[in-house]
Order: sequence, then C-alpha cells, then structure tokens
Amino acid sequence: MDLVKIELSEKEMPTRWYNVLSDMRVPMSPPLHPGTLQPLGPADLAPLFPMALIMQEVSQDRYIDIPEELQQIYRMWRPSPLFRAHRLEKALDTPAKIYYKYEGGSPAGSHKLNTAVAQAFYNKQEGITKLTTETGAGQWGSALALGCQFFGIELKVYMVKVSYHQKPYRRILMETWGAQVTASPSQDTNAGRQVLAQNPENPGSLGTAISEAVEDAATHDDTHYSLGSVLNHVLLHQTVIGQEAKLQMEKAGDYPDIIVGCIGGGSNFAGLLMPFIPDKVKGKNVRIVCAEPEACPSLTKGLYRYDFGDTIGLTPLLKMYTLGHTFTPPRIHAGGLRYHGMAPIICHLYDQKLIEATAVHQNATFEAAVSFARSEGIVPAPEPAHALRVAMDEALKCRESGEKKTILVGLSGHGHFDLGAYDEYLSGNLPDYSYPRELVEEALTHVPQVPEK
Amino acid sequence: MDLVKIELSEKEMPTRWYNVLSDMRVPMSPPLHPGTLQPLGPADLAPLFPMALIMQEVSQDRYIDIPEELQQIYRMWRPSPLFRAHRLEKALDTPAKIYYKYEGGSPAGSHKLNTAVAQAFYNKQEGITKLTTETGAGQWGSALALGCQFFGIELKVYMVKVSYHQKPYRRILMETWGAQVTASPSQDTNAGRQVLAQNPENPGSLGTAISEAVEDAATHDDTHYSLGSVLNHVLLHQTVIGQEAKLQMEKAGDYPDIIVGCIGGGSNFAGLLMPFIPDKVKGKNVRIVCAEPEACPSLTKGLYRYDFGDTIGLTPLLKMYTLGHTFTPPRIHAGGLRYHGMAPIICHLYDQKLIEATAVHQNATFEAAVSFARSEGIVPAPEPAHALRVAMDEALKCRESGEKKTILVGLSGHGHFDLGAYDEYLSGNLPDYSYPRELVEEALTHVPQVPEK
Repeated sequence: MDLVKIELSEKEMPTRWYNVLSDMRVPMSPPLHPGTLQPLGPADLAPLFPMALIMQEVSQDRYIDIPEELQQIYRMWRPSPLFRAHRLEKALDTPAKIYYKYEGGSPAGSHKLNTAVAQAFYNKQEGITKLTTETGAGQWGSALALGCQFFGIELKVYMVKVSYHQKPYRRILMETWGAQVTASPSQDTNAGRQVLAQNPENPGSLGTAISEAVEDAATHDDTHYSLGSVLNHVLLHQTVIGQEAKLQMEKAGDYPDIIVGCIGGGSNFAGLLMPFIPDKVKGKNVRIVCAEPEACPSLTKGLYRYDFGDTIGLTPLLKMYTLGHTFTPPRIHAGGLRYHGMAPIICHLYDQKLIEATAVHQNATFEAAVSFARSEGIVPAPEPAHALRVAMDEALKCRESGEKKTILVGLSGHGHFDLGAYDEYLSGNLPDYSYPRELVEEALTHVPQVPEK
Repeated sequence: MDLVKIELSEKEMPTRWYNVLSDMRVPMSPPLHPGTLQPLGPADLAPLFPMALIMQEVSQDRYIDIPEELQQIYRMWRPSPLFRAHRLEKALDTPAKIYYKYEGGSPAGSHKLNTAVAQAFYNKQEGITKLTTETGAGQWGSALALGCQFFGIELKVYMVKVSYHQKPYRRILMETWGAQVTASPSQDTNAGRQVLAQNPENPGSLGTAISEAVEDAATHDDTHYSLGSVLNHVLLHQTVIGQEAKLQMEKAGDYPDIIVGCIGGGSNFAGLLMPFIPDKVKGKNVRIVCAEPEACPSLTKGLYRYDFGDTIGLTPLLKMYTLGHTFTPPRIHAGGLRYHGMAPIICHLYDQKLIEATAVHQNATFEAAVSFARSEGIVPAPEPAHALRVAMDEALKCRESGEKKTILVGLSGHGHFDLGAYDEYLSGNLPDYSYPRELVEEALTHVPQVPEK
C-alpha cells in the first residue's frame, strides 16, 4: 500500500525562510527610484513598509529565522500535505510519478496566507495599527484580511470595482475576517476622486487600486501598505512551501526530475522552486518550469527591462520581464496571472537559465483542471490549473517515451470561488485568448528608457 | 509550545467502522413496511440498495472492516486533523480547553464524502452502473458526485429547483465531478410530471426530489438509490471521525468532558459521538450534546413516533423524534438541519438518556461562526456553527465557574458556499425564526397511527 499523502508533523515544519539571493552567482539589478533612477535605499521604502521587511528585502543572509509567534500561527495549516497523484497517474496511463504540493488547505484557500500573516506580524511589531492593500478578484485581499485579524490590525482593501460587484463571495470573506472593503475607484483618495471625475462609471483596475492603497498609506502615519507578490520579502516567506516539499520528497525516497508551477507575480512558484536552486546550481539534473497564460506571457514574450510595477507608474522601477506596465491583459479567469511584469527574482533565475517557461491556453488549462478534479477530487483554482496542464503534458510525454520521470507540481489553491469559470468551460462557452501581440507592442513603447549600467 | 493540530498518520487511520448497535442494552425499534406495518426485511430494500449495505444496516457486529480499496481512497483526506482552538480559547478568555475535529478538508468540503465513497464502492461491487439521489442545497449531492466519479458510476441528482437556480456553485461542483443534475420537479419521472401538471411553477421540495430519485431507481434494473444521512449504514461509515478523535484526544493526553455536534439527519454527529458511547455506557462522566436549530427542533420539541422519512410518505416508517413528515421548516441557512425527523440511532440514544439536546437561534449561531472564523481562521458551514455556539456557551460557563473543562466539538464542513448567509448576518439582515409551534402541531396530526407493540 503506497502512501497517498507524504505528511510532516508540526515539529518538522521549517523554522527559517530560505533566501535564494545568498546563492546567486550573478547579482540582481537593484530596484531604482523612479525620479532619480538611483538604486533604492531602505529610507525610500520606510513610509510604506516596516523596517524588518525592508531588511528582508535586501538581505543576503542564507536563512532568516521565522519568529516563534509566527510559527505557532503557521501550524494552523502547515506543514501542508504533499500528495502522490496515484489516481491521476492511472487516468493518464503514465509511468511518470506525479506529486503535488497543496496549499489550498489554508483557511484563506491559498499560499497567500504564508506571507499575509508574516507581513501583519512585522507591521504589528513596529506599532502599525492599519494596513492598506489592493485586490483584484480578492485572493490576496482575503488572505491579508485574515492575517490582520490574527494580529488585531485594521485593514482597508481597495477592491477593483468590477470584481467587487461580480465576485461578492470574496468581498464577504474579507468582511467576515473583519476587513473594510471599498470598491475602487473610490471617493476616499485623491487618486480615486481624480479617476471618478473623468468618468463616474469607471469600472476600476488593479493599477488604480494600487494608487489608492499606496496614497492612503503614504498619507497616514499609523498606516502601511502591503503587497502580495513580486517583492523579494514576499517570495522569501513562501519558501516554507519548497523546504517542506524537499523534505517530503526525501521521505518518499524520491527527487523531482521536473518541477512545475504557475506564475503571475511569481510568489507561489518561487516559494516552491527556490529551495531547489542550490541543488540546480551544483549541477543537479532538475528542470524547473514556469507555466504562464498565453494571454499574458511575461517570461516567454516579454522584454527584460526596467519597468513600473503598477499600471499608473507610481512604484519603483524593477528590472523584470515585462509586457509593458500599461498593458491590460485579456479577462482570463486566472486573475492572479493577469500581471504585466514578474517578480525580479524569477526574472533573474530565468535570465540565468536556471528555470524555463512555457505558455498555455485557457481551455487547455480547464481541461486539465477537470481531469484533475475527477481523479484527485480537489477542484483547482484556475491559476495552478496552468501548472497542472504542463505537468500532465510532461506525464503524457512519458507515456510515449516510457520514461518514469518524477514530476512535482505546485497546487497553490482551491477553486471554490471560481466555479463560474468551470461552468463556462463545461458548457463550451470558455473563450481562448491568443497572445495579444499588438497590444503588447503598443504597451512596450511606454516602458521607460533606463540607461543600462 | 503546544501543538495546534493533533495529527494522525495514514497508518493510524481506522481500518474498521464501529457499530454502536452492538453496544445497545435496549434494542432499537425496527423500521416498518408502510403498507403491512411489519418489520422490514432485507428483500424489501433490495430494489434500492446493494446487499452489502443492507447487511450493514441490520448488523449487530461490533466492527465492520473497511475494504482496502476504500481505505486507499479515505487516505486522500483522512485522517482528518483535530485542532486545539488556542486562539478561540484566548478570545473567549476561558479556562476551558476546546478541541475541534475538522471534516471540511475533504475535497467535497464536509464529512459527507466518508459515506459517499463507501456507498459508491458497494454499489460498484454489485455491478450497479448508476445511482440516483436527491439534494437540497447540494452538500450531499456534490459528495456523492465525487464518490461516483471515483468508481466510474453514473449519477443523476434531483436538485430542489429553487436551490438549483439560487445556488449554481453547488450545481457546477456536481457537474465538474461528472454528475447529471436535474432541477426537481422534472419531466423525467411520473412523480415530477404529476407535480408539474398541478403547478408548472412548483419550486420543488426535498420530499418531491426524494420521490423522483426513488422512482427512477426503482424503475431501472441497473440503478440504485443513495441516501446521505438517517440510515444506520450511513452513520456507521461516519464512525471513522469519532474513532480518530478518540485516538487524537488520547495523544493529547486528554478526554472530553463535553462532546458537541450539530444534528440534522444525524450522520455527522453520530460519527463523532458513537465511538464514545461504550465509555459512557460503562459510566464514564461525559456529556454528549446535540445542537439543533430553534426553527427545526426535532429532539427537543418532536414526538417519539413512527413516521415517514420523506415528505410525501413513500419511505418505510422509522421510529424517531419527528416534527411531522409534512412539516416544512423555515428557510434557515443551515439547509442540512432542515429535516423533520432524525436518525433512529440518535433518537434511541436520546430516549435512553445517553445524549442530550439543545436548540439555538440562527443569529446566535452566526455570531459564533464569525467569532470562530476570526480567531481560528476557518469559516464554518452554518450547520456546525450550531455546535460551535453550544461549545462556546459551555466555554463561557467555564469562565464564570473557573472550571477547566475539556470540550470536543465537531466541525463538519466549511462555509465557502454559504457566504451569502454571512453577508446577511454581517449587514444585520439575518432573520431569527422561533419554534413554529402551530405548524408543527398541524403536521403532527398527519403522523401515521402505528400500534405500539
């Protein structure tokens, strides 16, 4: 009888985050101040983030201790299970072994809670009583709502107006956990008022919501801002995933030939893959594959340039693969993957050829998601369904070649709030979006010109 | 550092179901044929159920082995975690220790999957290729959809029409797992056509849906019928919950002074409490408390009589506490507790004073649910929120008395598909329904007259 889950006890949970910056042979390009084009210093970030997180952002230490109080909270949903997908393997009739690391068992339903509680903790430590953030479909906003609730911090979420009205369940979830949710653009900030003055019916965008959340935090002393992906410290917090997965693979007496994850801002997959980078750097034969949507293919079609993190152009400039910060991706259901840029760490690893990338279509991802749900039970969120598609394709290649490869795939969350998308797929009404080349080419003309050093 | 979860490994999962009938000093009253009023024999049930389940229904064996193939499937979500509610205890400022056994981590989101896979397995064993069932809000229908998918059995779910339209997510979930879902009343059965002929706009009821599902199964040789609660074999399958909980309490070095669970049909709570009955019978000082809704208080206000299990009056007569089979409970959000009767085993234990019962109001349960969500993270389904209310009240009594009681509560599922109810509560629009005395008194006049032996 093979084990279905490779579980760890609470005592085996990682007590440190792993910092991949310590293992980079080529240093990363620093973020730049958008005005001076000089490398950003800690003081530039202090109005928005607590110093502990800023220090993590730039740390070169190999490990950073997870505070005991935070470990105690992690224990509510960690260690997360690693499943052996026996039934999926059988359904695919493949000799490949498929393992999936499942983060959907957290109360917030995804990996986002790993960094949400950490960010709330460090802000609390520095006396911050209120946070602001933006959210699109609500995955990040709900995780941070719970994180803030755990530490008695007030949270105001600027939620893109069209999602606020179309996805009431995520809004209610945030409110159940005590957050205040405001449809963006709102009358609460200059940025919001400005947008509404131009068009009172403006449906909102992530760019506008970021502007409102940042302005709110920057103009209130007791208030900070919080981001759910892209930044180094956010990716750092997610390394509990990969550290656990490595130990679990070891317990299973196995090691992945291929690691697959979806990427939007990059935090989920970075958390899984980064702890495997030291092995890869030492020459271990493991392929690390990012799955991104054909409709928003930052790594496979973007340019490696300095660009803004937000749509409006308020943030520091980050060196990343970008489709242009003014690019608005098509409305695929994987809202978490609709981002023009990518975490600088992921981009650096990609540029160094330590990881590879592939883009997949929406219908193909839902086909994989439904196969997965019918064999393994769990209904995946649309985002990790991209990773499942790529993992299943690799397993099908093994059926052809007869190779018994070991595939590790990141299942970052459940799809309980995404069933509308499944309905569209099952009824044959789900559109595919091909790569929007013209829109991207137009957006790339707005990427700022930054002289390379 | 106290452990947050008391986990078991897959190897510690129960390999047998525990049959409480073997420990009953006073035998239960048998189900009766509605025509002859004679005790029901196995042959009477054979058109609807496989013989293996019928044998379990009447078995007096103390333990029944869980087939190896089924154990392998249970391992996908079992053993389920027992949590120590450290943060809730702190929020309540109570010296009581609160443990909760969480079944919401199963792919179907509740305990229902424990029996769904077992029923699908035994039907498959006997060559059945299709099952029918009814569902209200869709909790049971979705669990059985996944159970049937695992064994390649076709499933047709008759879903109460008003829910079919109001709760599309549960319908989509069933379809994602491959089930065919039909709004009831439908044109597919005589029962449905009859109801629609009287009123084409009939919104449906659980009673009508049962009639359709039973008729469909009874008129097709390859088709059986499946029920998600009430019957002995259904409760039996749920005993994996209580067996695990007992072992987990033992590992925690603890034993409950009070066990609390919600009851609708009774299967969730029976699964938790029954393995503790042998201790109770031997004189162990443990209180076992059922939490039912004030709007549908079968145990606290019903009569202990033979009555029909369905609204229309097609099923065998069961000796149970009933509010009358024609009683339609008010529209509380805990759809799983809107049942006029109760599992005969639960009723027998209640009649023997081995368990007690209490009824709670809807707003009080949601107040408990929100407190729980804010301290423990998990958003509970409205049904187990009834149990949380009672458990928290007991913990608050301990704050007054200073007693350090140990409370074990059953958290049978998550509330991801019930957030509309949370929205009503948070916005102050959730109605309370008091005990509908006049409706019950009227319904009790329709309970059949069965001479007591």
